[in-house]
Amino acid sequence: MGMSESTAAGATIGEVSEREALRRIFPRLPGSSATVVGPGDDAAVLAAPDGRYVVTTDMMVHGPDFRLAWSSPEDLGWKAAATNLSDVAAMGAVPTALVVAIAAPADTPVADLEAIADGFRLACEALAPGCGVVGGDLSVSETLTFAVTAFGDLEGRAPVLRSGARPGDVVAVSGRLGAAAAGLRLLFDEAVDASGVPDRDRFAAVVAAHPDAVRAQLRPEPPVADGPRAADAGATAMLDLSDGLALDARRVAEASGVAIDLDPGLLGDDPRAALTGGEDHGLFAAFPAGAALPGGFRRIGAVRDGSGLLVAGRPFDERGGWDPYLEWDGAAG
Amino acid sequence: MGMSESTAAGATIGEVSEREALRRIFPRLPGSSATVVGPGDDAAVLAAPDGRYVVTTDMMVHGPDFRLAWSSPEDLGWKAAATNLSDVAAMGAVPTALVVAIAAPADTPVADLEAIADGFRLACEALAPGCGVVGGDLSVSETLTFAVTAFGDLEGRAPVLRSGARPGDVVAVSGRLGAAAAGLRLLFDEAVDASGVPDRDRFAAVVAAHPDAVRAQLRPEPPVADGPRAADAGATAMLDLSDGLALDARRVAEASGVAIDLDPGLLGDDPRAALTGGEDHGLFAAFPAGAALPGGFRRIGAVRDGSGLLVAGRPFDERGGWDPYLEWDGAAG
Repeated sequence: MGMSESTAAGATIGEVSEREALRRIFPRLPGSSATVVGPGDDAAVLAAPDGRYVVTTDMMVHGPDFRLAWSSPEDLGWKAAATNLSDVAAMGAVPTALVVAIAAPADTPVADLEAIADGFRLACEALAPGCGVVGGDLSVSETLTFAVTAFGDLEGRAPVLRSGARPGDVVAVSGRLGAAAAGLRLLFDEAVDASGVPDRDRFAAVVAAHPDAVRAQLRPEPPVADGPRAADAGATAMLDLSDGLALDARRVAEASGVAIDLDPGLLGDDPRAALTGGEDHGLFAAFPAGAALPGGFRRIGAVRDGSGLLVAGRPFDERGGWDPYLEWDGAAG
Repeated sequence: MGMSESTAAGATIGEVSEREALRRIFPRLPGSSATVVGPGDDAAVLAAPDGRYVVTTDMMVHGPDFRLAWSSPEDLGWKAAATNLSDVAAMGAVPTALVVAIAAPADTPVADLEAIADGFRLACEALAPGCGVVGGDLSVSETLTFAVTAFGDLEGRAPVLRSGARPGDVVAVSGRLGAAAAGLRLLFDEAVDASGVPDRDRFAAVVAAHPDAVRAQLRPEPPVADGPRAADAGATAMLDLSDGLALDARRVAEASGVAIDLDPGLLGDDPRAALTGGEDHGLFAAFPAGAALPGGFRRIGAVRDGSGLLVAGRPFDERGGWDPYLEWDGAAG
């Protein structure tokens, strides 16, 4: 293939140089207001006016974490950004920047990388304005893989850990509970062909019937701005709800040495779905009794003496959540 | 498989929970002296006493970047750390911390992850004492993939970019030239079976005959401490030699708007190998004429008016280096 074709819009990443791929991607990526030295050198340099910075990293792997019949490239960029932004917010910090490493099969169209970049930009603009991509790496791999590292600024706040909940605190969440898991269940039940393989046509029908649940799964909108608000309101503990309310609440209970008692009457129409559904990417926090709950936070329970997770005062042992090490069946599609 | 077996030393990551895998890995990882909040929460918090921090990210993918017949798990951890540490050093910064995302096949023994962690620890101890792993992510994938993000502290120094070289500057390198590429060539020529597939027995024979070149390829020792030393000595430009001296020198020439003229008499016994061999992970820098070259730096040429790369005053257009997008043949092993 000649040079003029290999740099055309239809080229794959196996046909263009890494430099050419980056040249096409970078203009689509959001800039970061914390940039001191941006992309293009051996490393970026970021401002840390607080004297500290928050760091988190998360991978998304084709197969265990997403299916290409269901997620568009733009969705993938959005979700990879959103889930990392949520982890930064859960410390009480404002997200400032991302670095993005992508490994993709050689036959991936460069246009797909551009759409992935669009997803990163749209997610940052919607969820964390001022946060941008300051560096990255492109590799070839048989398995499409995203590795995002996100940074945040505490702006003078104390980081909000999982370990600070105290008996008497109010337990609250911001963001939806159970919708992402409902979307995933719909996809696996209905957006597959007769042999259970993810199917684009069936997917389109599911989206038309349940746009909201599918979007919660494929393009989550974590309440990122509520993280710093919670810290400012005195939150004693906080975490990102990634593995389901029950499992994540138990983590806070264990780290804090307390019991967390949830009121099923405050968990919506389907409390069991709210408790066991993963990938909500809402914020779970404890606040001192009497604190005004900020932003989208609403009360769902209380912190008590004791240990573990209670629902209506009784131990709740269902696991919920998703452990990719134990549960992935090896399928992709 | 019962619980007692699934947590035994011989378990694979498909048989244990992510939590159990992390419990076994984390004690082997080096701690970071910059830690404010360490692993175990949604994100880590690191100190940035300088008010800025350096960030770089790099992936290593089974197939294009390493072969399991040649690299031990410990080698992989070492190299993933070392290459990122070198990028931090090339800005003039002292590496402070890493976050490490690993995606591995479900049948990977947890003992291999422990050995990978050992490699990270040994590399940090040897190359950047005080630098440690402050967070990470474990995923399953059909393709063993490492994504490392590294952080550094400029300690008040101005970052050394690729763009600051000025006519009249001395060009210098620290670290070996061409050895890593010689090692790779030996591996592909001699550590394969009759059909060209990487072979452990043949590998052992190559290591016995050429321990030094193989080690330069599989377990590089970049001169990390020379990065801050170069900045302190007034380096006007610097970069990590990852894609071969010729290609990387051309990048500095282009970014700085100058010509770089290398003296082949200062490039060792085989100047062409020194120019075109990739993965040296030495430091390439320009210094003002008359500056005392620090640490392991030695003069190899000069910066001149003009553009591009010259060798003994004549344009040198050979590419060298390695572009995984254009050159990976799809083989693994």
